[in-house]
Amino acid sequence: MERWWINGQPGRSIDVTDRGLTYGDGLFETIAIRDGRPRFLAHHLDRLSEGCDRLRMARLDRVRLAAEIAAAAEFRHGVLKLVLTRGPGPRGYGLPAASTPTLAWGTVASEPWASGPIRIRWCETMVTANPATAGLKTLGRLDQVLARAEWSQPEVSEGLMTSTEGRLIGGTASNVFLVTGDRLLTPALGRAGIAGVMRRVVLEAARKAGILVCVSDLPPSAVAGASEIFLTNALTGIRPVHALGAHAWSTGPITRLLQARLVAAGVTECAG
Amino acid sequence: MERWWINGQPGRSIDVTDRGLTYGDGLFETIAIRDGRPRFLAHHLDRLSEGCDRLRMARLDRVRLAAEIAAAAEFRHGVLKLVLTRGPGPRGYGLPAASTPTLAWGTVASEPWASGPIRIRWCETMVTANPATAGLKTLGRLDQVLARAEWSQPEVSEGLMTSTEGRLIGGTASNVFLVTGDRLLTPALGRAGIAGVMRRVVLEAARKAGILVCVSDLPPSAVAGASEIFLTNALTGIRPVHALGAHAWSTGPITRLLQARLVAAGVTECAG
Repeated sequence: MERWWINGQPGRSIDVTDRGLTYGDGLFETIAIRDGRPRFLAHHLDRLSEGCDRLRMARLDRVRLAAEIAAAAEFRHGVLKLVLTRGPGPRGYGLPAASTPTLAWGTVASEPWASGPIRIRWCETMVTANPATAGLKTLGRLDQVLARAEWSQPEVSEGLMTSTEGRLIGGTASNVFLVTGDRLLTPALGRAGIAGVMRRVVLEAARKAGILVCVSDLPPSAVAGASEIFLTNALTGIRPVHALGAHAWSTGPITRLLQARLVAAGVTECAG
Repeated sequence: MERWWINGQPGRSIDVTDRGLTYGDGLFETIAIRDGRPRFLAHHLDRLSEGCDRLRMARLDRVRLAAEIAAAAEFRHGVLKLVLTRGPGPRGYGLPAASTPTLAWGTVASEPWASGPIRIRWCETMVTANPATAGLKTLGRLDQVLARAEWSQPEVSEGLMTSTEGRLIGGTASNVFLVTGDRLLTPALGRAGIAGVMRRVVLEAARKAGILVCVSDLPPSAVAGASEIFLTNALTGIRPVHALGAHAWSTGPITRLLQARLVAAGVTECAG
């Protein structure tokens, strides 16, 4: 990020007692800026609002926040990262009697990159399963950090993770979709994982297109049995997986159909 | 905390891109200062060093750090909180090719408080189980924050938590010990929980005293069957539990023996 604002003021300084730092007590969003506008902003704010409710934080004023974010997107294409914490507080896990949330965001201009087919791998580090925070983009992401540190080969774009309960969850920074028969499958995230904004966009596009969609617990072995597999992320849209260990896939018909639907919805990366 | 130092300089400002904030990518320690010295500092540095290894962070220079912490403890009694992160970094989970860790600590003078018997409760929020980070005092502590938010009655001092795998783990900010028959039991923490410094002190004292010690997986039901139960924390030593729901205990002989041993080792709170 090139420029940062903290609570509406230009700056990049966070107090050392901020509970976002001391306890991971907060949330974040990573939003694509396309043609000068934050893409799927309502979806991002939905997830942020749900996170505020579940973490017992006051909801932000959506209308005001949307206007501020739109004003911050002062370039054609790029990324806006938003961090919301419970704010500074005294030592101790207990919620402060009065706390002022910290809202930080950073922006950087960058061209969208083409989402071509990728090679992925399995990670040994597992995603923590806990219904208290499942689905949310909370600040504590050490599982993903340790998983991403498992490989350094540039030809491997992502790593698939299972939960500590043995279920397929997704990539370190992406959600996963499989096609089996005529069904589009993606893991249920009620116990682990992050409910990605692009995952929601794909699910909505698939249902509109009349594709049979199944959101459920999936074993890792479901991957090997899939006829198509792709990953989703707010910044990259749909990325078809062409290789995972000895398994190989080509970009199949359902993936192509969804890519076309997403391009029509503004996810132009999918045309790559 | 009243005074803070960041990387050796007085201050309290953390960069908004610090991975401790953005990903919970770091560790912390809370150290009691007694008679002008950090208590059990070697134990705290052992845990911190193990954390650095497991998070793939460079270990700190222990000798230098110990000297700096000793110099910071410029009052008779109090608390020193230390936060170590991987430092600022670009967006993305991948470890930065080069990163400079952030080492922050804060101090506050405060008298030790007497560790009298307490009432506790059960929490519904579960402790995340993940062997990748189990035992470590990592910055992501949202499970404990949400558990501590479950009650506000001042007469309830702590909440017991089970793991997402259904095992007894400990309090939101403490470890738990049970006495059953002639054995001292405490949960194994290879899959969830934080291996507390006072837990280690108690285990070492118990073994020296010839008490049979058993560190193992425990079901929550073990609590109801215990003849003695106490909690441990670096700042409070041993706190005997006298009430949990309808269950009542008095401070039993093994608890009293361990309290006396800890007082002799400098944990004078246990005489309270």
